[in-house]
Amino acid sequence: MSPHVAPRQVKVIGIGAGSPGHLTQEAIAALRSVDVFLVADKGAAKDELVSVRRALCAQFIDGIEGEDYRFLTVTDPVRGPDAERDDAAYQSGVADWHAARADRYADVIADLPDDAVVGFLVWGDPAFYDSTIRVVDAIGERLPIDMHVVPGISAFQALAAAHGIVLHAVGQPVHITTGRRLAAEWSPALGSVVVMLDGHLACQALVERAPDLVIHWGAYLGLPQQTLRSGRLADVIDDLIALRAELRAEHGWIMDVYLLSPS
Amino acid sequence: MSPHVAPRQVKVIGIGAGSPGHLTQEAIAALRSVDVFLVADKGAAKDELVSVRRALCAQFIDGIEGEDYRFLTVTDPVRGPDAERDDAAYQSGVADWHAARADRYADVIADLPDDAVVGFLVWGDPAFYDSTIRVVDAIGERLPIDMHVVPGISAFQALAAAHGIVLHAVGQPVHITTGRRLAAEWSPALGSVVVMLDGHLACQALVERAPDLVIHWGAYLGLPQQTLRSGRLADVIDDLIALRAELRAEHGWIMDVYLLSPS
Repeated sequence: MSPHVAPRQVKVIGIGAGSPGHLTQEAIAALRSVDVFLVADKGAAKDELVSVRRALCAQFIDGIEGEDYRFLTVTDPVRGPDAERDDAAYQSGVADWHAARADRYADVIADLPDDAVVGFLVWGDPAFYDSTIRVVDAIGERLPIDMHVVPGISAFQALAAAHGIVLHAVGQPVHITTGRRLAAEWSPALGSVVVMLDGHLACQALVERAPDLVIHWGAYLGLPQQTLRSGRLADVIDDLIALRAELRAEHGWIMDVYLLSPS
Repeated sequence: MSPHVAPRQVKVIGIGAGSPGHLTQEAIAALRSVDVFLVADKGAAKDELVSVRRALCAQFIDGIEGEDYRFLTVTDPVRGPDAERDDAAYQSGVADWHAARADRYADVIADLPDDAVVGFLVWGDPAFYDSTIRVVDAIGERLPIDMHVVPGISAFQALAAAHGIVLHAVGQPVHITTGRRLAAEWSPALGSVVVMLDGHLACQALVERAPDLVIHWGAYLGLPQQTLRSGRLADVIDDLIALRAELRAEHGWIMDVYLLSPS
């Protein structure tokens, strides 16, 4: 590779939490500038998420004169289970997986024409609990790239809007964390707590310590099957566990997020 | 007022952190559905913020057939200084001010035609450090309303995108708080900390305790005068204090936000 090669344009585009209505003007302009969308093939279970991305491109790009694009599927490296690992093992596992992903993507990008604009469509906002920016940084260690990030509506914003609430009490903080950290991390001093990436409603571990927490929960936010619940944690947790299992069985997958607030 | 009056439609629309590019499809559709935008008159210092709102409406509504709208300016109640108050006094001061605002807005709305759709344009995302949802809830105690909230890109998302960063370390939390709380609240256990509503770079109080924190700072995000800085807190704080004062003097106002991350 010559040192004179111009950097590849890579756009990391936040597409919001599910609804095409979440797309910003800037995201639509970025979509239209992309020649090749790279998509991780995560297996059949996530097919619906890939097809939503394809539908967005069809909706916002197809028919625009002179705009052409294609999807390139890249098989995702296998990633071990996270839940049982401690923090250090989790971090190094994620770093290995980012490196493996970056290797594959760098190979694919190197084979594209020099002036091809590469795009990654990111669910929600690339700034929260998404690996794309870190993987693109790692790609940048393998070949010269110029990254441009477009923010998107995150699931917790769609949650707040759907419930018609502010995420924090007046002048108080909001803490955003993950299901795997919640039980160990939670304390009243954190203020309101948004919980993401929680496959098991980890808040059930808080019911005895903090039964009066108020939960605002939402699944499939921005999608037609959007489902909302709220109430005092101790009062609603059993129904919520049952509902989540039912929805997951019905749709084959679930994405949900919730807020825990002081009462 | 008859008990049979249909609720007034009130739309609380997040317009993003400054750039028209932040507007979502859903926000544009909501803008176009509004008949009367209510705008708080906060005096001359905030005129530029009002004119940005007017420019957005002109850009996205004017010329659309059949769409008409007007701006109604409502004088804001006077609010005392916050900085010196303790938490309880701050909360009750804010509550009084919300009630005074809700009284004025309810009077204005009651005088509009029954079917007029009312809109509030909110800088950033209505879910974060904005009073509109709480004020509209209070209006709802005075006359029947039906509130619809549209999320928007918040300043901290524009900050992350402009710097090309994820807001948290892998799998770790993000804590979002205000300048007035930062010095008392900060601890390494919070993870990465986003600081909003900070008129005085309160992070300078952390330099001795945590000189190795990394700051990512941005002002006027999404606007032509956008300015970014980053670095080790102890290394950059003096330049940042001087830069912020210069920018404020040059433009007559400043809106900024920053992230503090573990190194």
